Amino acid sequence: MGKSRLEAFSDGVLAIIITIMVLELKVPHGETLDALKPLVPVFLSYLLSFIYVGIYWNNHHHLLHATQHVSGAVMWANLHLLFWLSLLPFVTGWMGENHFSSTTIALYGVVLLMSAVAFFILQRAIISHQGNDSLLAKAVGRDLKGKLSPAIYLLAIILAVLGIPMAGLLYVLVALLWLIPDRRIERVLGEHD
Amino acid sequence: MGKSRLEAFSDGVLAIIITIMVLELKVPHGETLDALKPLVPVFLSYLLSFIYVGIYWNNHHHLLHATQHVSGAVMWANLHLLFWLSLLPFVTGWMGENHFSSTTIALYGVVLLMSAVAFFILQRAIISHQGNDSLLAKAVGRDLKGKLSPAIYLLAIILAVLGIPMAGLLYVLVALLWLIPDRRIERVLGEHD
Amino acid sequence: MGKSRLEAFSDGVLAIIITIMVLELKVPHGETLDALKPLVPVFLSYLLSFIYVGIYWNNHHHLLHATQHVSGAVMWANLHLLFWLSLLPFVTGWMGENHFSSTTIALYGVVLLMSAVAFFILQRAIISHQGNDSLLAKAVGRDLKGKLSPAIYLLAIILAVLGIPMAGLLYVLVALLWLIPDRRIERVLGEHD
Amino acid sequence: MGKSRLEAFSDGVLAIIITIMVLELKVPHGETLDALKPLVPVFLSYLLSFIYVGIYWNNHHHLLHATQHVSGAVMWANLHLLFWLSLLPFVTGWMGENHFSSTTIALYGVVLLMSAVAFFILQRAIISHQGNDSLLAKAVGRDLKGKLSPAIYLLAIILAVLGIPMAGLLYVLVALLWLIPDRRIERVLGEHD
Repeated sequence: MGKSRLEAFSDGVLAIIITIMVLELKVPHGETLDALKPLVPVFLSYLLSFIYVGIYWNNHHHLLHATQHVSGAVMWANLHLLFWLSLLPFVTGWMGENHFSSTTIALYGVVLLMSAVAFFILQRAIISHQGNDSLLAKAVGRDLKGKLSPAIYLLAIILAVLGIPMAGLLYVLVALLWLIPDRRIERVLGEHD
Repeated sequence: MGKSRLEAFSDGVLAIIITIMVLELKVPHGETLDALKPLVPVFLSYLLSFIYVGIYWNNHHHLLHATQHVSGAVMWANLHLLFWLSLLPFVTGWMGENHFSSTTIALYGVVLLMSAVAFFILQRAIISHQGNDSLLAKAVGRDLKGKLSPAIYLLAIILAVLGIPMAGLLYVLVALLWLIPDRRIERVLGEHD
Repeated sequence: MGKSRLEAFSDGVLAIIITIMVLELKVPHGETLDALKPLVPVFLSYLLSFIYVGIYWNNHHHLLHATQHVSGAVMWANLHLLFWLSLLPFVTGWMGENHFSSTTIALYGVVLLMSAVAFFILQRAIISHQGNDSLLAKAVGRDLKGKLSPAIYLLAIILAVLGIPMAGLLYVLVALLWLIPDRRIERVLGEHD
Repeated sequence: MGKSRLEAFSDGVLAIIITIMVLELKVPHGETLDALKPLVPVFLSYLLSFIYVGIYWNNHHHLLHATQHVSGAVMWANLHLLFWLSLLPFVTGWMGENHFSSTTIALYGVVLLMSAVAFFILQRAIISHQGNDSLLAKAVGRDLKGKLSPAIYLLAIILAVLGIPMAGLLYVLVALLWLIPDRRIERVLGEHD
């Protein structure tokens, strides 16, 4: 089976997720800058989630770039990833409207954690479909960042549950980690070409 | 006529349907886990509908993969399917907000039933356009699952109308039935290649 | 310039228009069938608009199928069409929530009329870019339906302004007129192949 | 890396931005034309933003048409542009609901200014990836309009901050400037072909 519709559908869902999050930025009634102040935390959580969806779109792009064919299992692993990402607008809004309180930070982390797990499953499903000697298996390699991120999310969740909302800064840290371009796959693919 | 725009348009509509359903998960005002409790049934109905749209996207993908050309009749049969699926966010929200009461279970079933009928019509429209000896006609074969599902939906609707909301579990059963990958079309296509 | 992104963007916008209209079907609070009764006119206006967007998507598909290249003028003519169609969810919701009162019927007609005019302009822009001897110019021919429709919309608007909401049935008539498949372009293209 | 998914994702996001803006046109409760009057400024701001998204889509189309490959930096520069454009529905709604008051005019200008800066960065990222002798570098040339627009936005923001809401007309002026088709890239590409 070809991968083009999988890409098209994922692009569509990710494009909608990234865009409907802005609907949580509800137009305020006042016309002064003061009327915008309550929106600052909502805006900040939107910014963070926008970057996360961007990271997932980038990684998804790389992952499927190194993929030739998809199976039924890959399709469902992909839908599983999209499911967790689809919950991002909800936890983003909840976190923003409650000024990054501990519980909302923890739930946001749960969605990030499950998305990371789902991405890992998708990666394994594609590799198992293509073989361990495949280009992708080599490109992914030890996948340090992919293994470190869920560990940090878990730490942040625990800290948040213990009542330390500052743990949310760990999400910013992970995002920065991924913003540094992932040269692994690009390098291996480059060597291949 | 080519099938690429039919696929692109359907991907777009399905991507939007699957994503806007999450908008029914309205951000609650409280910041505690208790504030999320009323959302549990809404979340469960979202989960079920997400899986159903995923199933339809998968089946649609398989169906059109085995299709070479589309006619005007196929286009309208496709729009007819998208129409019923577009009502899914509405019945999902209604069912979730009313804690799976009988009437909402019945209406949800009506939309599932009509979607199944619409998918059957689309399948027939494509086969009639391609001929009964076509690859697709062979791949579909007796289409046991496709004929069983509407029968189960009908049963669930009747039970729900009789005041048995547990009938909703039948929808879960059908979803599981489809999650088991449909090897028919893949097999016949595999033999062909 | 190629036409693929014009098609992809239009598919995206039309897919969103057709899907967000269903958001006007607000989930009611009650759980009985009675709670759905007030939604019947909203549902009917949704059904009509769904069919209209379907018709435009079909016609757009045919039009661009017969087009090889697009110019800047074609791009803006296309955006102009999408603008009017993007107002359809608004007038659909207004008409449905006000039970097809005269004023809402008239405004709905204005949007249909302007969309038809915009489609005509788009058609002319493409033909003028491709030449009067082009395949498309021949396929369109006298374009009876394309000229009749705006005239009927205009009649319906006038009747509605005069306080006759039944004029809305004329929109149903035009929709039926278009649902009858347009064999002109298909025929000429078929002869060409 | 290919550019097709970058185009598809951007088309998706831009299609959603241009369409969800219309959701700010909330269906009024009355059924008379008077009920629509308060919506006139919302409609006008929607019209302006629709044209701006159309301009960005057109320019984006031209820019990527002259691009062969994309890098990670180009992908993030593109997401950066989409981020600022995603704020357009918010500032459009705020400006429309507050009848173009000075503060809202200024904030609308900030989003336009940042979008223009982001487009410039994207252009530079692509040129730096393709080389200064590339087709695109030649096509862009001195980029007079691209440099003039942010200057005008800045002027409008300053005037608006000084309490002159009429400065908003400068946005209309810039829009008209861009509606005049950009023949530079088309010309250079035409010479190349």
